[in-house]
Amino acid sequence: MADRALIAEILCTGEELLLGDIVNTNAAFLSERLTDLGICVYHHSVVGDDPRRLGECVEEGLSRSDIVIISGGLGPTKDDLTKETVAALFGRKMKLHEPSLADIKSYFERTGRTMSKNNEKQAMMPEGAIVFPNHFGTAPALALERDSKSVIMLPGPPSELIPLFCEQAEPYLRTKINQAIVSKNIHIFGMGESAIAEKIDALLIDTPSLTAATYCKEGEVRIRITARAETESLASELCEEHAQKIMRSEVGGFAYGVDVGTIENAVVTALHQKGLTLSAAESCTGGLIAKRITDISGCSDVFFGGCVTYTNDVKHRLIGVKEETLERYGAVSEQTAREMAVGVRLATGSDIGISTTGVAGPTGGTAETPVGTVFIGISTSEGESVRRLSLSSMRSREYIRQASATNAFDMVLKAILLK
Amino acid sequence: MADRALIAEILCTGEELLLGDIVNTNAAFLSERLTDLGICVYHHSVVGDDPRRLGECVEEGLSRSDIVIISGGLGPTKDDLTKETVAALFGRKMKLHEPSLADIKSYFERTGRTMSKNNEKQAMMPEGAIVFPNHFGTAPALALERDSKSVIMLPGPPSELIPLFCEQAEPYLRTKINQAIVSKNIHIFGMGESAIAEKIDALLIDTPSLTAATYCKEGEVRIRITARAETESLASELCEEHAQKIMRSEVGGFAYGVDVGTIENAVVTALHQKGLTLSAAESCTGGLIAKRITDISGCSDVFFGGCVTYTNDVKHRLIGVKEETLERYGAVSEQTAREMAVGVRLATGSDIGISTTGVAGPTGGTAETPVGTVFIGISTSEGESVRRLSLSSMRSREYIRQASATNAFDMVLKAILLK
Repeated sequence: MADRALIAEILCTGEELLLGDIVNTNAAFLSERLTDLGICVYHHSVVGDDPRRLGECVEEGLSRSDIVIISGGLGPTKDDLTKETVAALFGRKMKLHEPSLADIKSYFERTGRTMSKNNEKQAMMPEGAIVFPNHFGTAPALALERDSKSVIMLPGPPSELIPLFCEQAEPYLRTKINQAIVSKNIHIFGMGESAIAEKIDALLIDTPSLTAATYCKEGEVRIRITARAETESLASELCEEHAQKIMRSEVGGFAYGVDVGTIENAVVTALHQKGLTLSAAESCTGGLIAKRITDISGCSDVFFGGCVTYTNDVKHRLIGVKEETLERYGAVSEQTAREMAVGVRLATGSDIGISTTGVAGPTGGTAETPVGTVFIGISTSEGESVRRLSLSSMRSREYIRQASATNAFDMVLKAILLK
Repeated sequence: MADRALIAEILCTGEELLLGDIVNTNAAFLSERLTDLGICVYHHSVVGDDPRRLGECVEEGLSRSDIVIISGGLGPTKDDLTKETVAALFGRKMKLHEPSLADIKSYFERTGRTMSKNNEKQAMMPEGAIVFPNHFGTAPALALERDSKSVIMLPGPPSELIPLFCEQAEPYLRTKINQAIVSKNIHIFGMGESAIAEKIDALLIDTPSLTAATYCKEGEVRIRITARAETESLASELCEEHAQKIMRSEVGGFAYGVDVGTIENAVVTALHQKGLTLSAAESCTGGLIAKRITDISGCSDVFFGGCVTYTNDVKHRLIGVKEETLERYGAVSEQTAREMAVGVRLATGSDIGISTTGVAGPTGGTAETPVGTVFIGISTSEGESVRRLSLSSMRSREYIRQASATNAFDMVLKAILLK
């Protein structure tokens, strides 16, 4: 079915989405992965636990798309009706799938919990289903095919949906595409999205076999290059060639890595590679730098910790910022940022110290230091430097804090490069 | 049109949603507000900038719902086609809306930017539109009515959609509802969602005039009571009566507040009220406690800061945890948590010190301290106490860290109550 690009749509079920209790991150995740596979996504839908409405949405999806991916409704309760609804639509009977039952039993044994009778429901499958075993929870996923169309059913919790999709649904989808697809992400900091898009347009010609898209998040930009070819090696070659073209251009000068994930991931990797250690003294970011670094499991070899110094007194007590400096230049100043970075490096004994002090808003701005003014300091055994940010005061507190943390990580990466 | 509950659906437009570049937070926001208004939401959809697909989705929405709320597509470019598409569907001509043009001109003057010719497009409105002026950007919002149905069109950026909805679309919707609606949120910590739901079922009878829903997030549960009556005061009375019924029950014993927002908000408010100050020493939460507290603008009067002590050496250097304690009991122990809480309180001079040390995983667990083991310490001038958590090792690192921070906030609230 792949003479033209495949069309998929995403149908998420769950009252909690319709009540606004949770945000639909599954749709965003699936969309990104499908786009990477060169599959077009023209519709997302969300519907509740009502089998009639669910059935209507599946039918409508099949009428306009090749593939319908449903998330949710594979649980053990009577409200979980996805498999049953699709089976009825396809005229298939439900029957016990023994390998799934064995998997569910073993999952409960492994986690030391008692399996209740209704978990058996999760092992019931429509006749002819392609079952995707779930190693991350109790609900196996599945695909059901009719004519040239497929319905893929995945569990709702992202902690199960994401690994299950990558491990099993994606390879299944790849068999539907007569093409090999390879993607690379180039991570950029310090150049705006529209400037990047312009430069890339001049460098690469967007063709069905090669596309480049830019994604922006609080000052960071990710360029995703996707190449399609008859074989994996041809696609890889095409992708690599154009990634290098970008890396050798002006844009590449702002890149902090290829396929490295977040900038804090790049920082942890770089610290590991050079055997260096980091600490942070945070005022306006209030723990966000530490939080983002310690989101990464295994960061403790390279991140010693640090201080959240939300008052002048604590800046002085914990990391020795001079009272005179605070009085003369104020807490939000280049001088204070400098002493904080030095202070936290010496207090923790790390190789690199980083600091932030600024006005995250929405209140607290003055004429000299309006909301969005942030000083970021860095200290190593070679010396110190401070970067001043003047972010728009129209930006949210969250944006200003995140962008400050990202700038701090950028400074750490540049300092590591010099070591 | 309000003999039965109104039905609305949400239709978000934008390629960036279909590409997975952004998460659909608008749908969650609108759903929650509509639910609060007693309006049922049975469908969300997302569609791209294609006028045919957009038109089909609007038509389908109108066939099954009373109100269709569209976000996005009100911008100045030729891809922004929401108004034009709905106007064509309703057989209305587009014409210049002079007050909107004046607003747009004044917006550009105010923000010191130059208005380009295509911004005039944003002042074009379908005949008969009810225009909602936009004080937060350039695109005015609007409603278009036909028979007893409405289409509400809002700009896509959340920074415009959210205030515009609250300020203008919500009052418009209230005119469609022949009822007053009042909601209250009771915030619970320390009791599971299903136990709460059971107790509430026994206390309240779910009727169209009174509903109670529970929402769960990393160990916290929010009960939302919504009352509907002919007048505001009757609805308020009904809501208040049942909120008190819950507060006097066993469930109320686990409540940390009514309409207080997050638990960290409750902590900041309680600290303000009692004139107390807080600091935190974080190991496994790695800055998350400080981050969550400092998300709140104005927390600096009550939050002094603290330390992220990711290594034993930093625990000793910054907050004086004894080397002997670390050697004898280990970093993840009751004794270390206790000394960390005392240490950070004394080092910062705050009234209350809180600490976390544990194994957030996925690696680092041992037989005695498996992943999910966390010790949370609290210290005040009256003494110390430590809570041990044994979270399931199947939980994600993110869950374990968030739940640990939430437990710390719960302990702070309990300590403040005793003061």
